[in-house]
Amino acid sequence: MAELFDFPKVEFIGGKKGLDFEQSKGYNFYNADEEFTINGETKAMKDWLKFSVAYWHTMDQRLVDPFGEGTAVRPWDENGQDDMSDMEHAKSKVKYMFEFMDKLGVEYFAFHDRDLAPEGKTLAETNANLDIIVDMIEAEMKRTGKKLLWNTSSLFTNKRFVSGGATAPFADVFAYAGAQIKHSLEIAKRLNSESYVFWGGREGYDSLLNTDTKRELDHIADFYKLAIDYAKEIGYTGQFLLEPKPKEPTTHQYDTDVQTTISFLYTYGLQDNFKLNLEGNHAFLAGHTYEHEARFAREAGLLGSLDANMGDKQTGWDIDEFPNDIYEATLVMYEFIKNGGLPTGGLNFDAKARRSSFTMEDLFYGHMAGMDVYAAGFRVAYKLVQDNFFENILKNRYASFDSGIGADFEAGKVTFADMEKYILNKEDSEILDTVKSGRIEAIKASLNNYIYSVLGETFKK
Amino acid sequence: MAELFDFPKVEFIGGKKGLDFEQSKGYNFYNADEEFTINGETKAMKDWLKFSVAYWHTMDQRLVDPFGEGTAVRPWDENGQDDMSDMEHAKSKVKYMFEFMDKLGVEYFAFHDRDLAPEGKTLAETNANLDIIVDMIEAEMKRTGKKLLWNTSSLFTNKRFVSGGATAPFADVFAYAGAQIKHSLEIAKRLNSESYVFWGGREGYDSLLNTDTKRELDHIADFYKLAIDYAKEIGYTGQFLLEPKPKEPTTHQYDTDVQTTISFLYTYGLQDNFKLNLEGNHAFLAGHTYEHEARFAREAGLLGSLDANMGDKQTGWDIDEFPNDIYEATLVMYEFIKNGGLPTGGLNFDAKARRSSFTMEDLFYGHMAGMDVYAAGFRVAYKLVQDNFFENILKNRYASFDSGIGADFEAGKVTFADMEKYILNKEDSEILDTVKSGRIEAIKASLNNYIYSVLGETFKK
Amino acid sequence: MAELFDFPKVEFIGGKKGLDFEQSKGYNFYNADEEFTINGETKAMKDWLKFSVAYWHTMDQRLVDPFGEGTAVRPWDENGQDDMSDMEHAKSKVKYMFEFMDKLGVEYFAFHDRDLAPEGKTLAETNANLDIIVDMIEAEMKRTGKKLLWNTSSLFTNKRFVSGGATAPFADVFAYAGAQIKHSLEIAKRLNSESYVFWGGREGYDSLLNTDTKRELDHIADFYKLAIDYAKEIGYTGQFLLEPKPKEPTTHQYDTDVQTTISFLYTYGLQDNFKLNLEGNHAFLAGHTYEHEARFAREAGLLGSLDANMGDKQTGWDIDEFPNDIYEATLVMYEFIKNGGLPTGGLNFDAKARRSSFTMEDLFYGHMAGMDVYAAGFRVAYKLVQDNFFENILKNRYASFDSGIGADFEAGKVTFADMEKYILNKEDSEILDTVKSGRIEAIKASLNNYIYSVLGETFKK
Amino acid sequence: MAELFDFPKVEFIGGKKGLDFEQSKGYNFYNADEEFTINGETKAMKDWLKFSVAYWHTMDQRLVDPFGEGTAVRPWDENGQDDMSDMEHAKSKVKYMFEFMDKLGVEYFAFHDRDLAPEGKTLAETNANLDIIVDMIEAEMKRTGKKLLWNTSSLFTNKRFVSGGATAPFADVFAYAGAQIKHSLEIAKRLNSESYVFWGGREGYDSLLNTDTKRELDHIADFYKLAIDYAKEIGYTGQFLLEPKPKEPTTHQYDTDVQTTISFLYTYGLQDNFKLNLEGNHAFLAGHTYEHEARFAREAGLLGSLDANMGDKQTGWDIDEFPNDIYEATLVMYEFIKNGGLPTGGLNFDAKARRSSFTMEDLFYGHMAGMDVYAAGFRVAYKLVQDNFFENILKNRYASFDSGIGADFEAGKVTFADMEKYILNKEDSEILDTVKSGRIEAIKASLNNYIYSVLGETFKK
Repeated sequence: MAELFDFPKVEFIGGKKGLDFEQSKGYNFYNADEEFTINGETKAMKDWLKFSVAYWHTMDQRLVDPFGEGTAVRPWDENGQDDMSDMEHAKSKVKYMFEFMDKLGVEYFAFHDRDLAPEGKTLAETNANLDIIVDMIEAEMKRTGKKLLWNTSSLFTNKRFVSGGATAPFADVFAYAGAQIKHSLEIAKRLNSESYVFWGGREGYDSLLNTDTKRELDHIADFYKLAIDYAKEIGYTGQFLLEPKPKEPTTHQYDTDVQTTISFLYTYGLQDNFKLNLEGNHAFLAGHTYEHEARFAREAGLLGSLDANMGDKQTGWDIDEFPNDIYEATLVMYEFIKNGGLPTGGLNFDAKARRSSFTMEDLFYGHMAGMDVYAAGFRVAYKLVQDNFFENILKNRYASFDSGIGADFEAGKVTFADMEKYILNKEDSEILDTVKSGRIEAIKASLNNYIYSVLGETFKK
Repeated sequence: MAELFDFPKVEFIGGKKGLDFEQSKGYNFYNADEEFTINGETKAMKDWLKFSVAYWHTMDQRLVDPFGEGTAVRPWDENGQDDMSDMEHAKSKVKYMFEFMDKLGVEYFAFHDRDLAPEGKTLAETNANLDIIVDMIEAEMKRTGKKLLWNTSSLFTNKRFVSGGATAPFADVFAYAGAQIKHSLEIAKRLNSESYVFWGGREGYDSLLNTDTKRELDHIADFYKLAIDYAKEIGYTGQFLLEPKPKEPTTHQYDTDVQTTISFLYTYGLQDNFKLNLEGNHAFLAGHTYEHEARFAREAGLLGSLDANMGDKQTGWDIDEFPNDIYEATLVMYEFIKNGGLPTGGLNFDAKARRSSFTMEDLFYGHMAGMDVYAAGFRVAYKLVQDNFFENILKNRYASFDSGIGADFEAGKVTFADMEKYILNKEDSEILDTVKSGRIEAIKASLNNYIYSVLGETFKK
Repeated sequence: MAELFDFPKVEFIGGKKGLDFEQSKGYNFYNADEEFTINGETKAMKDWLKFSVAYWHTMDQRLVDPFGEGTAVRPWDENGQDDMSDMEHAKSKVKYMFEFMDKLGVEYFAFHDRDLAPEGKTLAETNANLDIIVDMIEAEMKRTGKKLLWNTSSLFTNKRFVSGGATAPFADVFAYAGAQIKHSLEIAKRLNSESYVFWGGREGYDSLLNTDTKRELDHIADFYKLAIDYAKEIGYTGQFLLEPKPKEPTTHQYDTDVQTTISFLYTYGLQDNFKLNLEGNHAFLAGHTYEHEARFAREAGLLGSLDANMGDKQTGWDIDEFPNDIYEATLVMYEFIKNGGLPTGGLNFDAKARRSSFTMEDLFYGHMAGMDVYAAGFRVAYKLVQDNFFENILKNRYASFDSGIGADFEAGKVTFADMEKYILNKEDSEILDTVKSGRIEAIKASLNNYIYSVLGETFKK
Repeated sequence: MAELFDFPKVEFIGGKKGLDFEQSKGYNFYNADEEFTINGETKAMKDWLKFSVAYWHTMDQRLVDPFGEGTAVRPWDENGQDDMSDMEHAKSKVKYMFEFMDKLGVEYFAFHDRDLAPEGKTLAETNANLDIIVDMIEAEMKRTGKKLLWNTSSLFTNKRFVSGGATAPFADVFAYAGAQIKHSLEIAKRLNSESYVFWGGREGYDSLLNTDTKRELDHIADFYKLAIDYAKEIGYTGQFLLEPKPKEPTTHQYDTDVQTTISFLYTYGLQDNFKLNLEGNHAFLAGHTYEHEARFAREAGLLGSLDANMGDKQTGWDIDEFPNDIYEATLVMYEFIKNGGLPTGGLNFDAKARRSSFTMEDLFYGHMAGMDVYAAGFRVAYKLVQDNFFENILKNRYASFDSGIGADFEAGKVTFADMEKYILNKEDSEILDTVKSGRIEAIKASLNNYIYSVLGETFKK
């Protein structure tokens, strides 16, 4: 096949081509075949990190914003346009997608149903359009060995979903949502999707004043149960994932953040059927760090998959920037390693180049930079885990619960009366002596040293 | 008893003294004995709204801020100081507290243990100090008929709690917390407290880097179980309440918001033992409106009690301003009415005058204004409920679930395959026709009309 | 002319049709011909408030958001589309615009050049398209007596402006911007526009890392000087306005807020050539209240015009909601009155219905509700000014500067040495006695009384 | 003199003691005597960076927060207290201060008047107390060669300043402020302070409703003129600095950010008399990055001095954390180098350890970590400047203004008519071809490479 992109295949160069990223055009940290061992399991970096290209951003995103038209220049354009309503155009993009993955050395991809093909006048027509493209994708997957990390259904783009899909106040729209998901699950089954994602972009409210929150949540919970039933019926065994986001497009989304989503799952008895797909930018909009969300999902046994993107800390909306923050990448990768990686998930680039980075090269650079910073963060986190860096900090800090009254409490042997007896006549000064500094300043400085040291090795002269 | 405050007893004046709040010195909307009927139950306003004075703010708050010393001028001052370490001073404040309630016509109050009396060198000494004041309070309660809305324990002021109480990494501090709560529960029992509150001001983290979040949460969950056991043991039957707040003093508090707290309760099987104490300023810091938090707590059956305060929408910390926003008051009171009021809770003034409102008069004005705006909001919400204002909006908007496929779905009779069959060949335009405008602009304008009309009645010429 | 809209002409009903806004379909507070006197000048409400319909939102806005297609249903649609590239369609909308104003009883409108007509392949073609529509608008203005509040040029929609117009790093784009503004100024002259607005949506940076901020600001300052020169040359005497906004679409816009803009004007000696066009949603995104921005613009003599819209206090992007907050409307109208109204400006509805309020009725309701809340705020503010409400507060609070050392200081007669002499041996307690409470709680409560009383009159039984 | 601190003198170790910061107890990046050349001037690192210890945080800060008492344990404590009202205690702290600087190898310090000595009952008494400590400091400065970076006056701690100092509504308070500053200027003269800072913590408003913003700003502008006069009178020639902050303790401070402060300076003709003292945490609270504020101050010729601290991006108040973010440090140091360093300023640690880092060791660690991250950032920025990294990006990006119509415009030779002539018939596609990608993703990835490479050298094996 003739090359569709005038861009070299991106290889691991390990710092050998200098500091200018644009000129070096290689990975300094992402070394696909280098092996790493987590919890006794040894795998290649590519099999741990499982980067994934997002069809919607990479193939369909025109870099429109609310104040301006799309700027993206793409080789699959016709007359400077990416005509989303044209089936022939939709077909032509499939081969670009797979060559893009090949150039980058990425093994996975992800899509919404509506990323792939235009809608018709009925769902029947729409499904027919979609199936044609899915046929092509299936063929390309066989040809190339690429895998589907996850797929999902867009219940937010079409105007029928203006007030929600599975939480729509309108029964026809609700039924449409169910019918649409049904077909998406069939595609998931057919393409062997590792996970299936529900992102409830419009499942929330614009205003509490006209929203029956209870009835809507009852609906969506039952809707999920129907999805579980149908997956079972067709033998689809991929992991169901919910993707928390606090707002945008709605004023308030129901799946606000990790813990709100857990609350929902428990309220409706769904906690065993779902894991979570997290995103850094969503975490920030909810008032959390990305590592906070990853931590709480992991500890709940719900860390399913991760979006590799980033927000801007002064910006109040979802910018889906390609990640470049080594601190965030390191701390999220720490949670990733403690989770034993992501068996049914990966690192999906729900990210787009800035609107002023409109060339095809920028799309390569964004993915490359994102892969490199997460591979770099993985390397730092891996070293931190090898050295038991955080584990030692915690072991020392909580040591008083490993013996004495602390251990007795953890063993369930202590009552309030026991505590009172133990503490009632102790001098305050004696109690205060057991309180130790948290050493946050020193820990953060050590973390900086780890980053510089582990990553500086790559560029050492 | 000679009058301790040079301030008139505040009476209902119902708009008769004009618009100048300071000069009129009465309630325009709070009419203690006026009766209202909710869910068929008729009670006086004072028995529905159950306003409560907060000991910490009203008696102890010096209006310190991180950049300046206290400015408050209080009649119980000695040499311009409120000496919190002096038992005689602590005693003298009790009578001021009860006269303050009497002047305002407030029936309830709330306190932390450490608001009342100074600490000693051991918990035994501290408890002894505390019991002396509790004796006085018990006597005053008998004398005046005032009631304790809730009490709580301060696990955040003393430096031993720098890294938490029930989540402290230090077993002695943890044991201290248990012993301290034990005594607070005994006080709750003795003073017949309607609820008992846990506010986890330091139960969270300053940095994820040195925090074993899982171990800390395991600890606090078991700690709560011990509290439940002890309450049972002593026969205390008041309602346990958790109070969500996202941050401050910590970087991140575990009980971030209503739904995070629900997630915690379910995770540890505690969902039947707690309700929630909500606060408007906390809601805002968590990225929610107060009415959102009230709604989600109510629908989960967990709306226990409310703090009557307000935040500033441009300010990123907890300012505990006396409430004055009629919109917020109306919408929170709507949830209140739909909840059937707050059987074991009330409206507690976790609020303080601004630092530049340092006189004793300002403390009266703050409470009066807060009572009036919540009474006003109650009146508007009451009328909205009488008119089925929101109920009619919802009934119309969700009507398609009251028959046809919508009703079948709610009855559990519909699968994804049924939905597909129903929708597959419907024209999109037909489906779109079922989508109705949410009418947010018109609803908000009607709400304004309700506010002006209901409250303007008071001042009509 | 046959009626284009199936909606009644909106009239003043003054509370006579009850509280349901949608059913009453009239103005409760906006009474076009009622007279009000400010600074001795008596004019009708319509001549004070000068409401204006915004072409871009009202005629062109499709209610697209970053996650979904447009939902708006408009009578000028062809096949459910508002084809912005079609001249015939552009022509047909002009008559709808003027009938819309007529139905509402609005006298003014505003537009960007690109709102009106599609672009051609060269600026010459684009100008030709534009002139055809401007001809039609001119004719309609003559026919109806409607007036142009302000016009402006879109230097942000077309992709050539991706990195700015007057601050573009590319000389051709910069030259295009100048040429485009030239024509817009000619239109301003021709249509007798009261003001001419510059909103620098893309004049800022996406990233400091690739931006020569100094060179860009030098460019735009000189660009403004060319605009001033050209206006002079053609005899256009309308007021030039800058419109501050802190961010969105850029990460950081140069005209961040009122005072940043003043800093820019002084830095480049432009302070006598511009006033400001303010917006509530922009103020909020910059961390200010709308009344703050209005106050500081007014006191700098730069309050030129106001956008009548509102943001959501939990939402981090520009939502351009129709205003409905009586507090904000009252306080902004207070500044408006103190400014003697807006001689060359007005209240422009830079506002759109929510995406779920997609019907033509909602567009009417939004404007009506916005006019009513600003008319209501105006009535409250008018009464506050009549009663010298704020003026008396300030007079009392700053009284110590009206005599003694305060007055001497204001008269320029005091040095630091004089102050030292005056204060050096005064007892602190004596100084403290001069510090008075700011009475914020009481003032806010009185303000509530004013709102309820003034507006309740309308609905009195 | 016997050692007051049980802590080693901190030396440059340059990565030789491994990654554990606490164990290595040395500087990996701060090498006091290493020479660097900026704009042709060669100086030692210590003479470029001019780190400064802040008396208030380092000596007086007890790690109180609004919800808890101080936790700090300091060797100068008496009975676990730092008695700020005791002159003997105040005296004893001076020697600790100078030994602390000596241990760290810091050459500069900074203080507010009230950090040093307790207040008396009159200003005369207060000045007398202060002068005793200033005598001691003067002697220590002579003994050790340490220098005063800047001093200032606290017009915010004492309750008389509850509503401002130079903007107080009360003439006596205003006069007190002037008298107080007078003495501070005398101290600045005597101790040869390089700059004199005005931080207007209470110069702003709690509520617009009771504030005469115009009159207050007139007052403070005239107040500054009196300060300028008095400095002249006594021959004090240090640089006057204003310190922007948007809020806290007030709801809104007048000196909100860099550009608001420039607006104020121009409005009152003070632009030649002041430079600015910037802080990272203040920048963030104002909605800016630290590098943004540094850039705009530098380009206005007003970059006077820098606070070395950091905020938390999820926290809405001023946390004054010791800096540890290599990105922020690098970009701020880039502005620093482009400014030619800070001739009359330095890097002052307006920073405190976290409340849970309460030991004396943590205070050392915080300063050490802060010095190291700014020294590291300086090294990265230095290399970026040596390589013309940003300069080349800008040169290429703005090249079209170096010739042709761009250059003509910059030379003042172009009018709007010339632009129209140039652009009118150009094809849009031709214009679009001149628009180049901003390459943000690639630039950020290169910046990461610089950080890893420059700093990794230190730890190379």
